[in-house]
Amino acid sequence: MKIAVFAGDGIGPEVTQEAVRVLKALGLPGLELVEGDVGGAAWRKHGHPLPEATLEIARAADAILFGAVGDFECDGLERHLRPEQAILGLRKELGLFANLRPARVFAGLESHSALRPEVAGAIDLLIVRELNGDVYFGEKGIDDLPGGGRRGWDMMSYTDAEVRRIAHVGFKAAQGRNGKLCSVDKANVLETSQVWRDTVIEVAAEYPDVELSHMYVDNAAMQLVKNPGAFDVIVTGNLFGDILSDQASMCVGSIGLLASASMAVGTKGLYEPIHGSAPDIAGKGLANPMATILSAAMLLRHSFGLEAEAARIEAAVAKALADGIFGGDLGGSYGTAAIGDAVLERL
Amino acid sequence: MKIAVFAGDGIGPEVTQEAVRVLKALGLPGLELVEGDVGGAAWRKHGHPLPEATLEIARAADAILFGAVGDFECDGLERHLRPEQAILGLRKELGLFANLRPARVFAGLESHSALRPEVAGAIDLLIVRELNGDVYFGEKGIDDLPGGGRRGWDMMSYTDAEVRRIAHVGFKAAQGRNGKLCSVDKANVLETSQVWRDTVIEVAAEYPDVELSHMYVDNAAMQLVKNPGAFDVIVTGNLFGDILSDQASMCVGSIGLLASASMAVGTKGLYEPIHGSAPDIAGKGLANPMATILSAAMLLRHSFGLEAEAARIEAAVAKALADGIFGGDLGGSYGTAAIGDAVLERL
Ligand SMILES: CC(C)[C@H](C(=O)O)[C@@H](O)C(=O)O
Ligand SMILES: CC(C)[C@H](C(=O)O)[C@@H](O)C(=O)O
Repeated sequence: MKIAVFAGDGIGPEVTQEAVRVLKALGLPGLELVEGDVGGAAWRKHGHPLPEATLEIARAADAILFGAVGDFECDGLERHLRPEQAILGLRKELGLFANLRPARVFAGLESHSALRPEVAGAIDLLIVRELNGDVYFGEKGIDDLPGGGRRGWDMMSYTDAEVRRIAHVGFKAAQGRNGKLCSVDKANVLETSQVWRDTVIEVAAEYPDVELSHMYVDNAAMQLVKNPGAFDVIVTGNLFGDILSDQASMCVGSIGLLASASMAVGTKGLYEPIHGSAPDIAGKGLANPMATILSAAMLLRHSFGLEAEAARIEAAVAKALADGIFGGDLGGSYGTAAIGDAVLERL
Repeated sequence: MKIAVFAGDGIGPEVTQEAVRVLKALGLPGLELVEGDVGGAAWRKHGHPLPEATLEIARAADAILFGAVGDFECDGLERHLRPEQAILGLRKELGLFANLRPARVFAGLESHSALRPEVAGAIDLLIVRELNGDVYFGEKGIDDLPGGGRRGWDMMSYTDAEVRRIAHVGFKAAQGRNGKLCSVDKANVLETSQVWRDTVIEVAAEYPDVELSHMYVDNAAMQLVKNPGAFDVIVTGNLFGDILSDQASMCVGSIGLLASASMAVGTKGLYEPIHGSAPDIAGKGLANPMATILSAAMLLRHSFGLEAEAARIEAAVAKALADGIFGGDLGGSYGTAAIGDAVLERL
């Protein structure tokens, strides 16, 4: 059980530390943890946000526990040296093509959402976002124009093979949940989306038990406000998934509680909280580590098939929340270590 | 005062008719209304969603009142024959580059939003969306791949000149409101966004009285849920604007009340309700025409400088709402004509 631990920037190290404590407490046989530098922290030490040594550790690992990257002091750097390149690089180099973002309101926390409690309480959805293609990884550049001025450009694209691969993940996820898959695109404007939609429809033939629907991304953004409880699984491309999964997270009301998995073909995956590096509270022991702890649970489930252990962690977090162990993000006063302690006690 | 009236598909004709009644009731000297076919309706009659005759009417007009386009029976047509091409074509042919989408909750309607009333009630924002560029109008296509399979692609781009033009609209709008402009992009991933951000920062020097901030689009989607009341003016590109403006509209809770303007350089503009053609209720006299009536108010204000008349219409709609004249979209029982009557009575 080789797990790479990439804590990263800002609150990354603090929250990762608590998740590691939880993993260790389970007494899993053969557990091996290997640390590596990523993001602004890696750039400071090695001059690159994703040094070759880190990539090596990632390649050799069965799974990666990731904290957060992001550092305002790197804003002026060239694009390829910025902290975000660490996560983008890992996704690409390891072929982590399927981002799984569950969004569900913990019982009793409905009132923490900006949505009305009855709307928020009904949220139980999973966003399956493609992570290796789209406008993220196409050719891009900035050209000087003949008459003066500049033009920035980015190529958006999907092949049917790329869409097929992520569509299967979406359909399988729907089979394991409530059997409904909503594919989100902008096929009324984009040819990329036309291939997306055609391919999803083609793959649907293999999943007669799943009810497939299609929605334009602008409408999806509306329905996620109006009636998020109506969604089961959403499958979408890299860019739309970036926007909609963050929107859905905020509907839940507590981004300090949301985990994510980024899977390669097979069981290898990277697991990270959906919140960022939060530089304003970094190093103060104020960050809520629950999202990272829940990411560790996803890691055990998806990369090692350890469903019982994953459920044990999730139950401990739910118990802590039910007992009122709230971090600052939920208006409580528990700090990072105290929340870690509380979860460990309930494990 | 030459106004083109393009009613379009679905509920378009019904709601446009009420807005025309309101315009006529004002007794404006020199008012001339010229009808034209667009969308699926135009395709049925002339074989094209935006016939040359319609374009001629649009070119000759000072302003365009637009209903809605969208017709499921056209789904199987080639892209250039689909109803949406009418609105995309008008935007491009007439150089309608600046989409203005105000979102504000009418007093007393806070409880119609899925957001908590105190969150929804604080919404008073304007989204300025660029309409003539971005991935909407770049080169696009679907290629057959050598080894079999297909690849759909769309070129995303912005020149600094395009960004400058819309940035000025954003800054000026902020000057006329609360002096805050938030520019939304995805500069951590896209070169298009890098040019966007650099250019907005450059233009900001001319508006020292406006407070400029930058936000990544995924974060903007989150903040629009968490605290939409914190926004004043948002300026963004065509694609992100499509998504965020619809999200913001739904936060208001009543898309049957929201108007929009799409402006060219100068005072020429196209005005339309933000809702679509709603084929499910078309022809039944159930649609709420208030959004179209409010679009007519925007038309008088922005294309003809008739502020008093615009305000008169808006006050009549607000009065009708205060008196409980609710369409089905607000859980009421007033139909299209009855709502038109109610607004006319209060004019
Ligand atoms: C940091 C950034 C490049 C990244 C993305 O856009 O994918 C982030 O927003 C995410 O969703 O993981
Ligand atoms: C119909 C469609 C092409 C259009 C767009 O994406 O611009 C619509 O969603 C809008 O926002 O006016």
